Amino acid sequence: MSIKVCIIGAGSIGFTRGCVRDILTVPELRDAEFALTDISERNLDMVAKLCERDIAANDVPALLTATTNRREALSDADYVFSFVRVGGLEAFQTDIDVPLRYGVDQCVGDTLGPGGIMYAQRTIPVLLDFCRDIREVAKPDCLFINHSNPMAMNTWACVQYGGIRVVGLCHGVTGGIWQIAHLLGVPPEELDVVCAGINHQTWYISVKRRGIEQTGRLLDLFEKDPELSRTEKVRIDLLRRFGYYTTESNGHCSEYVPWYRKRPDEIRDWIDLGSWINGETGGYLRVCTEGRNWFEHDFPNWMEAPPMRYTPEQRGHEHGSYIIEALETGRVYRGHFNVRNNGCITNLPDDAIVEAPGYVDGNGIGIPIVGDLPLGCAAVCNASIAVQRIAVEAAVSGDDALLRQALLLDPLTGAVCNPPEVWQMADDLLVAQAQWLPNYKKQIAAAAKRLAAEKKAGNYKGTHKGDGAARLKTRSVSELRKNRAKHEKQLLVADKSAAKRAEDARGK
Amino acid sequence: MSIKVCIIGAGSIGFTRGCVRDILTVPELRDAEFALTDISERNLDMVAKLCERDIAANDVPALLTATTNRREALSDADYVFSFVRVGGLEAFQTDIDVPLRYGVDQCVGDTLGPGGIMYAQRTIPVLLDFCRDIREVAKPDCLFINHSNPMAMNTWACVQYGGIRVVGLCHGVTGGIWQIAHLLGVPPEELDVVCAGINHQTWYISVKRRGIEQTGRLLDLFEKDPELSRTEKVRIDLLRRFGYYTTESNGHCSEYVPWYRKRPDEIRDWIDLGSWINGETGGYLRVCTEGRNWFEHDFPNWMEAPPMRYTPEQRGHEHGSYIIEALETGRVYRGHFNVRNNGCITNLPDDAIVEAPGYVDGNGIGIPIVGDLPLGCAAVCNASIAVQRIAVEAAVSGDDALLRQALLLDPLTGAVCNPPEVWQMADDLLVAQAQWLPNYKKQIAAAAKRLAAEKKAGNYKGTHKGDGAARLKTRSVSELRKNRAKHEKQLLVADKSAAKRAEDARGK
Amino acid sequence: MSIKVCIIGAGSIGFTRGCVRDILTVPELRDAEFALTDISERNLDMVAKLCERDIAANDVPALLTATTNRREALSDADYVFSFVRVGGLEAFQTDIDVPLRYGVDQCVGDTLGPGGIMYAQRTIPVLLDFCRDIREVAKPDCLFINHSNPMAMNTWACVQYGGIRVVGLCHGVTGGIWQIAHLLGVPPEELDVVCAGINHQTWYISVKRRGIEQTGRLLDLFEKDPELSRTEKVRIDLLRRFGYYTTESNGHCSEYVPWYRKRPDEIRDWIDLGSWINGETGGYLRVCTEGRNWFEHDFPNWMEAPPMRYTPEQRGHEHGSYIIEALETGRVYRGHFNVRNNGCITNLPDDAIVEAPGYVDGNGIGIPIVGDLPLGCAAVCNASIAVQRIAVEAAVSGDDALLRQALLLDPLTGAVCNPPEVWQMADDLLVAQAQWLPNYKKQIAAAAKRLAAEKKAGNYKGTHKGDGAARLKTRSVSELRKNRAKHEKQLLVADKSAAKRAEDARGK
Amino acid sequence: MSIKVCIIGAGSIGFTRGCVRDILTVPELRDAEFALTDISERNLDMVAKLCERDIAANDVPALLTATTNRREALSDADYVFSFVRVGGLEAFQTDIDVPLRYGVDQCVGDTLGPGGIMYAQRTIPVLLDFCRDIREVAKPDCLFINHSNPMAMNTWACVQYGGIRVVGLCHGVTGGIWQIAHLLGVPPEELDVVCAGINHQTWYISVKRRGIEQTGRLLDLFEKDPELSRTEKVRIDLLRRFGYYTTESNGHCSEYVPWYRKRPDEIRDWIDLGSWINGETGGYLRVCTEGRNWFEHDFPNWMEAPPMRYTPEQRGHEHGSYIIEALETGRVYRGHFNVRNNGCITNLPDDAIVEAPGYVDGNGIGIPIVGDLPLGCAAVCNASIAVQRIAVEAAVSGDDALLRQALLLDPLTGAVCNPPEVWQMADDLLVAQAQWLPNYKKQIAAAAKRLAAEKKAGNYKGTHKGDGAARLKTRSVSELRKNRAKHEKQLLVADKSAAKRAEDARGK
Repeated sequence: MSIKVCIIGAGSIGFTRGCVRDILTVPELRDAEFALTDISERNLDMVAKLCERDIAANDVPALLTATTNRREALSDADYVFSFVRVGGLEAFQTDIDVPLRYGVDQCVGDTLGPGGIMYAQRTIPVLLDFCRDIREVAKPDCLFINHSNPMAMNTWACVQYGGIRVVGLCHGVTGGIWQIAHLLGVPPEELDVVCAGINHQTWYISVKRRGIEQTGRLLDLFEKDPELSRTEKVRIDLLRRFGYYTTESNGHCSEYVPWYRKRPDEIRDWIDLGSWINGETGGYLRVCTEGRNWFEHDFPNWMEAPPMRYTPEQRGHEHGSYIIEALETGRVYRGHFNVRNNGCITNLPDDAIVEAPGYVDGNGIGIPIVGDLPLGCAAVCNASIAVQRIAVEAAVSGDDALLRQALLLDPLTGAVCNPPEVWQMADDLLVAQAQWLPNYKKQIAAAAKRLAAEKKAGNYKGTHKGDGAARLKTRSVSELRKNRAKHEKQLLVADKSAAKRAEDARGK
Repeated sequence: MSIKVCIIGAGSIGFTRGCVRDILTVPELRDAEFALTDISERNLDMVAKLCERDIAANDVPALLTATTNRREALSDADYVFSFVRVGGLEAFQTDIDVPLRYGVDQCVGDTLGPGGIMYAQRTIPVLLDFCRDIREVAKPDCLFINHSNPMAMNTWACVQYGGIRVVGLCHGVTGGIWQIAHLLGVPPEELDVVCAGINHQTWYISVKRRGIEQTGRLLDLFEKDPELSRTEKVRIDLLRRFGYYTTESNGHCSEYVPWYRKRPDEIRDWIDLGSWINGETGGYLRVCTEGRNWFEHDFPNWMEAPPMRYTPEQRGHEHGSYIIEALETGRVYRGHFNVRNNGCITNLPDDAIVEAPGYVDGNGIGIPIVGDLPLGCAAVCNASIAVQRIAVEAAVSGDDALLRQALLLDPLTGAVCNPPEVWQMADDLLVAQAQWLPNYKKQIAAAAKRLAAEKKAGNYKGTHKGDGAARLKTRSVSELRKNRAKHEKQLLVADKSAAKRAEDARGK
Repeated sequence: MSIKVCIIGAGSIGFTRGCVRDILTVPELRDAEFALTDISERNLDMVAKLCERDIAANDVPALLTATTNRREALSDADYVFSFVRVGGLEAFQTDIDVPLRYGVDQCVGDTLGPGGIMYAQRTIPVLLDFCRDIREVAKPDCLFINHSNPMAMNTWACVQYGGIRVVGLCHGVTGGIWQIAHLLGVPPEELDVVCAGINHQTWYISVKRRGIEQTGRLLDLFEKDPELSRTEKVRIDLLRRFGYYTTESNGHCSEYVPWYRKRPDEIRDWIDLGSWINGETGGYLRVCTEGRNWFEHDFPNWMEAPPMRYTPEQRGHEHGSYIIEALETGRVYRGHFNVRNNGCITNLPDDAIVEAPGYVDGNGIGIPIVGDLPLGCAAVCNASIAVQRIAVEAAVSGDDALLRQALLLDPLTGAVCNPPEVWQMADDLLVAQAQWLPNYKKQIAAAAKRLAAEKKAGNYKGTHKGDGAARLKTRSVSELRKNRAKHEKQLLVADKSAAKRAEDARGK
Repeated sequence: MSIKVCIIGAGSIGFTRGCVRDILTVPELRDAEFALTDISERNLDMVAKLCERDIAANDVPALLTATTNRREALSDADYVFSFVRVGGLEAFQTDIDVPLRYGVDQCVGDTLGPGGIMYAQRTIPVLLDFCRDIREVAKPDCLFINHSNPMAMNTWACVQYGGIRVVGLCHGVTGGIWQIAHLLGVPPEELDVVCAGINHQTWYISVKRRGIEQTGRLLDLFEKDPELSRTEKVRIDLLRRFGYYTTESNGHCSEYVPWYRKRPDEIRDWIDLGSWINGETGGYLRVCTEGRNWFEHDFPNWMEAPPMRYTPEQRGHEHGSYIIEALETGRVYRGHFNVRNNGCITNLPDDAIVEAPGYVDGNGIGIPIVGDLPLGCAAVCNASIAVQRIAVEAAVSGDDALLRQALLLDPLTGAVCNPPEVWQMADDLLVAQAQWLPNYKKQIAAAAKRLAAEKKAGNYKGTHKGDGAARLKTRSVSELRKNRAKHEKQLLVADKSAAKRAEDARGK
C-alpha cells in the first residue's frame, strides 16, 4: 500500500512537518513517498532537512524528495496537499493596509472582506495551474487536499474549474468543540456534534450528549465563563442574536459581518487583545511576520532540538492524514470537510462550498444531508456565499467589474464605505498587488491612471489615518529573544490554526 | 360570463375606483358584480358612491354592493383584491419615526427596512385571515390578487400559509420601461423587455429592440439625460456598479442597500427633493398624509367632478384587470407578476416570491423560466430575500427572536446600527405598534419593561436627533388649497403607484 | 427585418413547400431568404422549382437558393429547419422488417421501439454535424427547429451535445384538440387545453371551456362516437385506464406500450385498417413508399397544377412559421413545443425532452411550469424517457451495450422477446443498417460474425414467419393511377403529419 | 443508557428472538427493555417464553414484557421494530394463486408484481396506524425500524404519511458481497462496496479491493463458477446485459422484470429448484407454510434445546441492532438502508425510497450522495419506482383506479396480460382479500358484481390451468419429520432472509 504524497508550498514548516508526521504515524502508510515542492528553494531545503531528520529518527521506510519542479513532484501522486500563500506576507500586508485607508479594519483578512477577496484573486489562478498539472501528471484519481486560504473561494474554483477531486480542510470545528466541552464539563469525545455552514462561518447546530441536546444551555454558560466571556465577545453575541455558536475565532467573526467593526471607537468593546486571534487589527499579519522572522533566525536551533516522534499521542488533529488513512485502510473517519454543497445544506445554494460533517472510508468521502440551517445562520452564510461566488468568477475571468461587486457586497465594507470609495479601494488594491495579478494586467493599468487622476484632482479617498482601532507593534527578533520562553510556543507555530488551537485547547 | 369581484380595503379610493373602471372596460366583463368591503364604513360609503355614479354614467349592467361584513363580500367571489393598509397612517408614522431615532433614515419604508418589516408583522396575520375566509366562502378556485405592501413578504405568507391561489401585483416594471423607451427615443411597445428579481428590486436584464440588445447603451444615456441624471442618481449608480437598471424609484432603491443612506451628510448627494419618491426622508408618509387630509376635505368636489369614463383609452395600467380579462376570455396577456419562484429565476431560492414575466390566458398564469440573474443583481436580491423569509416566519409565528434577526440582517440597518441598538429598536417598534400586533402580546410586555429599565439606567439608545437628513414639512389642507392647481394631480392620486407612474410617464 | 431561413432535407416536398408558404404569409417576413439544401440534388431541384414558381406567383420579394453544400446554405442563417430522414425508406424498411422477424410488430416505428431506436442511431450523428456547422457558420443566436424524427431523442441529443438553441416541433397536439372539440360540439378555439408529456405520448391533462373542466366527460363521448370508437380503440383504452386522452394516433399509441401488440392474434382487435395510421403493420412505411414512387412519377403534373397561394387562409398549422413570426414581430404565439424539461413537468426528469405548452414573443420561447402529470401518465412517459436517454447516449458514443439496453427496456420488445433474442435482434439491425451507422463500425463486424456463427449452429432466433398481424400490400404506381381520385389526397401528402391531420380534421 | 424497544409482530419467532439477542450483545444495552406485541396471543406467548429463557440464561439485566395491547407496548418506546405480515399466509396464498390464474407466475411475490402490490394494500394502512400510535405515545424522537415487506412501498408510505422517523432494513446487500468475495477469493471485509438502488433491485456499482475496481471481472467469474452459474442464472444474465450484479436472489430477480418468466416453457431455463429462493413458483409461500406448521408442532422441542448465547460471535447480521448501538454509543456503523432518496441517487426520483449506504453514529443516520446509477440499472429501478408510487397512493387513498394502474405498469404483468385481463385480475384480488382491505370496501362490492357478471357471460379470463411452471408440493409435518436432519436448518429459519443468507453464506 505504497502511496505518493505531494506537498506544494512545502516551505510552510508547521504544516509540512506535521503532515509528514501525521501520515507516518499510520502503520499501513509508513512506506509512503513524500514529494516536497516550493518556489523558495531555501525554505524547501530547510523543511526537507527537518523532515528527513525526523524520518531517520523514527526509523520508518518512508521516502522524501524535494524539488522546485512542481510537475516532477506531482508525477504519479496519489494525494496532493497545498499549503501555498500566494504573494506571501508582502502581498498580505497590502490586504490589510489598503482597506484600512478606507476605514475597513480587518483582524485576519484572509477569508472574506477585502483581504480575503484579494487573496482569492492571487491564489485561484495558481491553484488552477496545480489542478491542470494534477490532471496531466498525477494518478488518475488523485485527491487534491487544499489547505490554502481563502478556503471556500479557493476550493470553489478548484471544484468548478479544476476538473479533479478536491476537498478543502480546516480544523476550525475542533476548537469550538473543546470550548463547549470545557463549559459543559465533559470530555469532547462524549459530545455528538453537527457543525454546518461555510468555512469560518460554520454553526454548531446540534450538540448532544447521550442523546440530549445541549445547545439551549450554551449562551448562559459562555456568558458566565470568566475567561471566554472576555475573549469571545463577538462569538457570544452571535450566539445571543442567532441562537447558535459559530466556529470561528472572535477576531475572524467580527470581520465577516457588518455589526462589530464598522465604528472605530467601538471595536475594542468587542475584542480582546490577549491573543491576536481575538480581534487585533492586522493581528494575523503581525504574528505571521514575527514568526517568519524568528524562524529564519532560529533555524539552527530547530535542527538541534529533538526530532518529532511519530507516535499516536503526537499525531495532530488536522483532517488530512485521517482522510488518507480512511481511504487507504477502510477505517471510517468522521470529520468536517469543505465540499460542493450539492443539497447537503438544503437552504444554501448547491454550488457553494460548504463545511459539513462527512464520513471517509475505502468508498471515498461521503457527505450526508444536513438539512436546513437555522434561518438566521443561513442568512449570514448566504451573504458571504454571494460574495464568494462573484469573487471566484472575478478571479477566474480577470473581470474587475465583478471584483468591485464582490467588494461592494462584502458586509463590513458595505457598512463602512460608499460605492465610489469601494471602487477606488479596488483600484488601490489592484495596483498594490499588480505583480501577483497577471489576470488583471490591463485593468491595473487603467486603475493606476484613474488613481493618479483622482489624487491630482484632490479626490483621493483612501485617507483614513492611523493604524486601525486595535493595532499592536510587530516585535523584532531581538525583542522576541528577550522573552523567548513566553513567546516560543506561539512562534513555533507560525500558523493561524495552531495559534487558534492553542487558544481553544486551554479549556481542554 | 358573470364574475364576482371582491375588493377588500375598498376605502382606498384611487385603487378601487380604477379597478372597477378597468374591469368594466372589458366588453365581456360589463356585467361583473363588485363587492366592496372595508373596516371604515365612512370611507367605504364615499368610495361606493363615487363608483356607483361612474357605473350609472357609463350605463353598464354591473352590480356594486358595499358592506363592512367581509365574509359576506367574499361569498362566492371569483376574484379578490386586497388594497388594505393595516394600521393606516398612524402605524406608518412609527415605521418611519422610530428607526429614525436610531439613525435609520427611510424614504418610503413600506417594503424592506425596519418600516417594511414591521408593516409585514401587522399585515400578514390580517391577510391570512382573508385567506381563511376565501378558503371557506369564496369560489373554490378563487384568485387572490394582492396589492397590499410589503408585496413580497405578504404574498410569501399567503402562498406558503394561505392555502389559496395568489398573485401579487405591482406596476413597478412599467415605469422603468417608459424611462428607457424615452432615452432610446422609441415607443415603449417596440421594446422586448425581460425584467426579473423581487418586487422593488427587479432588474431589466434584457431590453431588446428588433432583436438587438440595448442594455449596454443605457448607462451612458441615463448619465447624459439632464432630468434623470439628477432625479435617479441611486438607480443610475446601481446601473453603473451592477450593469443593469432596476425598477424601483430612486428613493426606494436608496433604502434597500447599505450604500446610500448610512451617512446622514451624504444622503442629499444621492437623492432629489423635486418629488418625494426620489429620496425625501419619510416622503411617502408625508404625501399620504396630505392626500388623506385633502380627500376628506375635498370629497364634495369629487362628487361634482365628471364621472370616470369606461373606455379603452382611460383604462389604467395595473395588471389586475388584464389578468382577469385573460383568464376569462382567453386573450393572452403578458405582464410581470409576483409569484413563488419555483425555479423561474434559477439563482434565487425556490421559496422566494419573485417578480418575473408571465403569460395569462384561459389556462391560467404561466411563468416561464428566466434563468440566472446576473451575479451581482442576484446577490442584492438574495440579501433582501433572506430578510423577507425571516420576517414572514416572525409574523406568522409571533417569534420576536426572528423579528430581531430580520432587522439585524436588513442591509441599511446593519450598516447603521450595532446589535444592541437593533434589539432596542425592535423593542421600541413593538411597543409603539402594540395595538396592531396581537401576535406579539407577551413579547411586547417584556419589551416595554426592558425599555423602561434601559431608560432609567441611562442606556436608551434611540436618541438620534432631528427629522432625518431630508425631511419636508407636511402641508396642511389650507396650504394645499392655496396652490390647488399645482398640487391637485398629486393629491388626487394619494397612492404611491400613481405618483411614481406620473413621474415615470413624464418621459413618455 | 430580413431573415435567412435554411432548410436541411429540403427534398422533403410537403414540409418544405409548406414551410416556405407559411413564413411568406407573414407580412413582415415577405422579404425572407430561403436557403434549401439536401443530399439529393434531384429532389432539391424539383422542390426548388416548385417553390420558386409559388414565390413568383405570389409576387413576394423573397429570395430562394438551393445547394447541396450544407455549410453554404447555413451561412448566416437566423433559422434552420431540419426535415431529413437519414437512411431514407431503404433503412426504414429494415426498422420494420428485422424486428418483425423477432415478433415485434410495429405500425409506424419511427419514434420508439426498435425502429425508433435505430432511427435515432442513424440520425443523431448527422444532426450533431448540423449543430456543429450552425455553431460555426450560422448567426450567433440561430434557432434550430427540428422536425426530424424520432423527435424526442433527436432533440435531446442536440440540446445536450449540440451547443446551440434548439426547439423540436410536432403538430400532434392539434389533431387531438380537433377530435375533442368535435365530440364536445364546440369550435376548437373555445377550448383551453394543457397538453403535456413527451412527444407522441402527450396527455390532455386539462381541457376547459369557459373555465369548466371537460376531461371527465371524454371517455363516455369517445365510446359513444360511432367513428372514433372504431378507429381509436387503443387511445380510448388508454383514456379508460389512465383517465386522460393522449395525442398520438391509434397506431402509434399501440406500439409504445406492452399491452396491445404483443399477441399477434389480438392486434386486429385494437386497430383499424381504414387508415394506415390506426395500426396497420408497417403502415407508415407502406404509405411513404407509395407516396415517394407516385411523386417521382407524377412530378410533371405537379408543375402544371396551380401554385400555392400565400394567404392567411392557406397557411398551415405547423408551429415553425408562427414561432418565427412571434420572435420577429413580438406578437405572442402559444403552441406545444419540445424542449428540455428543466422542471416544467415536475414529475418527469429534468434532462428529458418534454412536449408542453409555451409562449413565444420577442423575448424568446417561454415554457411555464406545468406541474405534475397524473401518476399513471407520468409512469408511461418515464418508461419511454429511460429508453430515450440510453438510446441517445448509445448514438452519441456508438456504445452497442447501451443500444442493447435500450432495446431490452422498450416496453413492447420487452413484452415480446427474451434477452438473447433482443441481443440477436440488435446484431441483425446493426448489420442491416451498417452503411448508415459509421459510429458502430467495429461492433458491426463482431455482430456479423456472431450472427453467422449462430445461424451455423442453428441458433438463429429471427425466424418469425410472415408479414405481421396486419400488413397491407404496397400499391404500385399503376395501381394507384387506376384510382387516382381516391388516393390523391393521401399521396400528395407523403408525410405522416399530413395524413394524421387529415384524419383528425375529419371531425373538424 | 436504558432504552425501550418495542417489537410489533413479535410472533415472528426468527426475527424477534434474533433481534433481542443482537441488541443484548451490546454491553451498553444490556439493561434494555423489550415490549413485545402481536395480534396472536398464542404466538406472542411462545416467543416471549423463548426470549425470557434466553435472557435468564445469559444473565443480563434486560426486561421483557409481552402484551396484545399495542399502544401499551409502544408507550415511551425509543425504538420500534415491525415484523408484521398483514393477512399472514392465508392472504399470501391469494397473492400467488390469483395472478397465476392470469398467467403471472411469481416466485416470492412479496415485493413487486401483483403479490407485492396487494401486500402493500393490506399492510400500509396498518403501518400508518402504528405511525399514529408512535406519534401519540412513543418517545418524541422514536425511530421506527421497518422490516415488513414490501419494504420500499411500506417505508414510502410511512415516510410520506407517517410523520415519524423511519428507516427500512433488509439484509439483501450482505449476501451478494459474500458471493462476490467468494469468487474473488478474498474475505468480505477486504472489499469496499457501494450498493445502490431500491430494495431488492440494488446494484453493486462499485466493488473495490485496495482501491482497485473489481466489477469488470465479475461476469467471467460468475459464469465460470460451477455452482453459481447454475443457481443464479437470472442475476448473471442481468450482470451480462446491464454490467452490474444485483442484490436480490435469482427467484426475486426473475419476477421484477419482463424477460424471464413471461413464457411458461422457458421459466425453468432461468431458475434452479435446489432452493426455493432461486425461482420456484410460489416457493416462498411453500417454505413459509412448511415452516409455520413445523414450528407449531415442534415448539416443545425448541424449549428444550439450549438457549441462545448472547456473544459477539453469535450476533446476527441484521442492521437493526447495529443502528441502535451506533445511535446510543456513538460508534460508527456503515450499512445499507432504505430511506427517502432526497438526491442521494441523482438519477432516481427524490421521493422514492432507495437502498443506499449510510453511516450511523450519535448524530443520526447519514446518507451520503451516491450520484448517478448506471443508466440501465436506473431504468430498471425507475420502472419499479413508478409502480411503487402509484401503489402507495392507492393504498393510502383506497383508489382502485390507481391500484389497476400499478398492476398494468408492473413489468411482468404488462408482458403477460392485456388490459382487460389486468382489470379482471384486480377484481379477483380485491374480492379474494376483502377481509384485509377495509379501505376498498365499496370497490370490492362492485368488483364482485362485475366478476359474477363476467363469469355468467363466459368472459372470465382467470382461466390459466395448473400450478405454474415450477411448483413443488408443500410438505406435511410428517414428511418433514422423516427427514428432519436434512430439513431442520431450513425450517428453523422460517423466514426468507435467513434462507437467503444461508444460501449466500455457502460461499463464505
